[in-house]
Amino acid sequence: MRAKTSGRTIVVVGGALAGPTAAARAREFDEAARIVLVERAPHVSYAVGGLACQLSGEIQPPDDATRDPAALLQDSYRIELRTGAHVQSIDATQRLVHLVDGVLRYDTLIYALGVQSPAPEIVGLLPADNVFALRTPRDLAGLQALIAAGARRAVVLGGGYFGIEAADALCRRGLAVTLVERGAQLLPSFGRELAAMAAQALSDAGVTVRLDASVERAERAERGQRGARGGESLRALRLADGTRLDTDLLVLATGVRPRSGLLARAGAAVTREGAVVVDARCRTSLPHVFACGTCVAVPPALGDTPYWNPQAALADKTAQVAGTNAGGGRARLARPAGSALVRAAALMLGRAGLTRREAKRQAGSAWASLVVHAPAQEAFYPGASPLTVELLYDGQSGKLLGAELAGRHGVDKRLDVICTALAGGLTVEALAGLDLAYAAPYAAARDPLNVAASVASACRAELATPWSPELLERRRGKATLVDVRDTLSGGTIAGARHLPLTVLRERWAEVPAGTLVFIDDDGRAAYLAARLARHRGRATAVFLAGGLRSWCAIGYPLTKARA
Amino acid sequence: MRAKTSGRTIVVVGGALAGPTAAARAREFDEAARIVLVERAPHVSYAVGGLACQLSGEIQPPDDATRDPAALLQDSYRIELRTGAHVQSIDATQRLVHLVDGVLRYDTLIYALGVQSPAPEIVGLLPADNVFALRTPRDLAGLQALIAAGARRAVVLGGGYFGIEAADALCRRGLAVTLVERGAQLLPSFGRELAAMAAQALSDAGVTVRLDASVERAERAERGQRGARGGESLRALRLADGTRLDTDLLVLATGVRPRSGLLARAGAAVTREGAVVVDARCRTSLPHVFACGTCVAVPPALGDTPYWNPQAALADKTAQVAGTNAGGGRARLARPAGSALVRAAALMLGRAGLTRREAKRQAGSAWASLVVHAPAQEAFYPGASPLTVELLYDGQSGKLLGAELAGRHGVDKRLDVICTALAGGLTVEALAGLDLAYAAPYAAARDPLNVAASVASACRAELATPWSPELLERRRGKATLVDVRDTLSGGTIAGARHLPLTVLRERWAEVPAGTLVFIDDDGRAAYLAARLARHRGRATAVFLAGGLRSWCAIGYPLTKARA
Repeated sequence: MRAKTSGRTIVVVGGALAGPTAAARAREFDEAARIVLVERAPHVSYAVGGLACQLSGEIQPPDDATRDPAALLQDSYRIELRTGAHVQSIDATQRLVHLVDGVLRYDTLIYALGVQSPAPEIVGLLPADNVFALRTPRDLAGLQALIAAGARRAVVLGGGYFGIEAADALCRRGLAVTLVERGAQLLPSFGRELAAMAAQALSDAGVTVRLDASVERAERAERGQRGARGGESLRALRLADGTRLDTDLLVLATGVRPRSGLLARAGAAVTREGAVVVDARCRTSLPHVFACGTCVAVPPALGDTPYWNPQAALADKTAQVAGTNAGGGRARLARPAGSALVRAAALMLGRAGLTRREAKRQAGSAWASLVVHAPAQEAFYPGASPLTVELLYDGQSGKLLGAELAGRHGVDKRLDVICTALAGGLTVEALAGLDLAYAAPYAAARDPLNVAASVASACRAELATPWSPELLERRRGKATLVDVRDTLSGGTIAGARHLPLTVLRERWAEVPAGTLVFIDDDGRAAYLAARLARHRGRATAVFLAGGLRSWCAIGYPLTKARA
Repeated sequence: MRAKTSGRTIVVVGGALAGPTAAARAREFDEAARIVLVERAPHVSYAVGGLACQLSGEIQPPDDATRDPAALLQDSYRIELRTGAHVQSIDATQRLVHLVDGVLRYDTLIYALGVQSPAPEIVGLLPADNVFALRTPRDLAGLQALIAAGARRAVVLGGGYFGIEAADALCRRGLAVTLVERGAQLLPSFGRELAAMAAQALSDAGVTVRLDASVERAERAERGQRGARGGESLRALRLADGTRLDTDLLVLATGVRPRSGLLARAGAAVTREGAVVVDARCRTSLPHVFACGTCVAVPPALGDTPYWNPQAALADKTAQVAGTNAGGGRARLARPAGSALVRAAALMLGRAGLTRREAKRQAGSAWASLVVHAPAQEAFYPGASPLTVELLYDGQSGKLLGAELAGRHGVDKRLDVICTALAGGLTVEALAGLDLAYAAPYAAARDPLNVAASVASACRAELATPWSPELLERRRGKATLVDVRDTLSGGTIAGARHLPLTVLRERWAEVPAGTLVFIDDDGRAAYLAARLARHRGRATAVFLAGGLRSWCAIGYPLTKARA
């Protein structure tokens, strides 16, 4: 029996990752179509993940001999490959893809051109043979060559995910790294505490972190002094405050932009950032045109604004959906979790769900957040270290809105639980009771997420009221601080009275009047003290959420306590 | 201001783990009550987790100096401790706890006596000074002393979680270990494939695994030959098949039983296993009596049969709920995920949700299961190893019912995602689209759970039909096997014809008649071949789920293929 001939042609533009995935998926649903994959580069299916791990020296470049993606696409999926092919324009009316050397007619188009890394506008920056992004194997090769030739100092521009990843990798590789961020904190989508923890972890590892730092101009090697690779070189960056940062190489991580020009010019709707707007079936605004990969903005988890997050896992999902639908199957995107996971030296950080700003927009005044530090493993397990969990939730409905996490181990696991909880629409009460898997080497019997959600539930039930360090800082003049630790080693917050929880009942008469704020190391004992105070009629007693650990992480000062 | 005096007395019976937790939680809700904690042993709050990790030598015993649980309970929670106190009986009508040396009157009772490890009935087994369970610090100390005195050979009786944990620990410690299990497989709640993987992993590490092995009698040291510790010793076990297992020590892991006698005699309802039946608020059938910890059976995730799973994380949740409600607060148990996580040498195994048998009872003929092997990290990451995922789901509704997992890394993470997905009532379609967090060192862009759920979704959509190895074995005579790998290295299933996927389209004419079963290494290419065959009119074509990896894991044979 012969396959039915559909006569259909599916053209896929872009051969990095999403394109090949979409093409393969389309073939699963349409055995008869002609499927053509067009890629500018000489290769298809090149991984962009893992470049930082190669730069750090942790992993070796993948062995291409073990797997030939081109052969797989051609032989197993019968995809026609057109590598080295430059697309000049797309005609969505005539359904044509104009190449430099020809024209492809399509019945269905899948657009997957990914992102590009535009260089920031800095006087004197380019051309230079020691300035790279860290987005392609070519970038990596360039950086490796500079290091092999003796580069010892590096500057990374941009304190977002990519910048931190690059700074972390270069630091592991042994270079003296300066990370320069224009804003007041690293990781702009994170809250102040966890962003500060990331900066601290990088500093602890030897990275110089410069915040609120803008680059005024680049200084180049003097005439006659050629760069390590023989071309013109960057020598130093001059910051707006006058600081001169001498460097042997510069990594640009100031952001990426969707490579959407071709489709935008063909009439497709794009977002303000330039991402191609797709629906849950990965259809663009143009008929017969799907798009996928890091260049698309998908329907968001909440609200209407198309969501652009140039991230591999989401890109892969759009590719599967676009390919399936282009091939005649039926698939829909799930709502994106908005997750991100980044390593900053010894610290892992992750987030998922709504940001603070989005949570405020979504839940109005009912939005709430809470920081808890809790052990990720039983205390008896060696190397057990606390996990910092910040939950964002709707104080009215209890619904989980998002979370931020930081710790030395196990951040990725809890982040995936959060992603799943968001997909399931769980409340903080459900998260508090969630029966997660326990075994001593891998978990604590009471997971940090259980602990955080349980405190959030108690706050929702009005059993206790948390104050964030920022709130305490703002209201400090009107509050009566009581430090309930056994000893005040390391100092406490200025003005705090010392009354250990263990003697609080006996010495209750000494508790001062006013709005009581209990403080301790991590929030646990202070929470208990606040509950005790409420039982004794002090209905406005609150506790410092996250304790002095959070207070200090943000950078607020300690002094010796009054007796 | 003075606290109001409730006059109430809350008595907590059992001071290991759940009891202290419940007592502390009760205090949070009732500042005025008298709370008395009664414990037989001289200490309270001793951890039973981590004993195996201490036996293996991986961790040191916890440093008790760093934390005094008794002081914490007394000072921070104002709990009255009665250690070394033996409860003789409970009178639920008069609300009395009769101790050897007195009586406690209660308004509310919390019962938390945990489990015991009854010795199996084996002729000649006891008394012996080299036979232990691995459930208490005393067991651990006994085993450590035997090893210090030169014990080199160990037998572990029982192939469930505790038995595997003990065998794994003793093997890591360097002993020659034999694991004896009465049943046909280890881990009775697991499916055949993953149970076999556990046995294989232990064998690979040097453990002798004996299945279908029952102990006929114990042989003791001859008169005059005293054991290492001076008492009477076990020398060997004689199995029913005549084998004699010489050993220096024996670990009993044949099961635990709820320590529920006191409450049962007071009239409380218990299950067939003897677990105290509690409702979602941890109330027993007796008025004013709550129960918690490993001795209780809780409302199950599905159906009505009370669910007993003596596991630390669940025990902790019941303790929080019992304590809160006993203290006058309001708390409810979430449905238990039924999770378990165990390490078998280099392999981690986990499960959550319904077992096969429960799934069949729940979903009737619509129940389905599917095994997938997929990489837990990108292929370029060193040490990347596949995760084996078996999903149990309702083929009708698509609802996830449970899962089993095995792999070298990352099992705990995916298991927690499964627990959360079960709590959220997710379908396999939702699991397929789940946006999990990605970063090269921690995850693959397409998570193994996404892959498994995506294949399950395709099967539900009738795009493909999986056959398990067991099903193929049963129907082999009626099926036409086609091996679609590039080469048949290592052999194939007897009778399979070789037609690589890469040439399947060209050589379609050679595909034989009959019910086609495509086979390959792991199921991926065979799935594609089956879909291709359906496009070409072979509507009954199926693929071997999990491929030859699953086929061989179960122990089915390979032969060289016909040409």
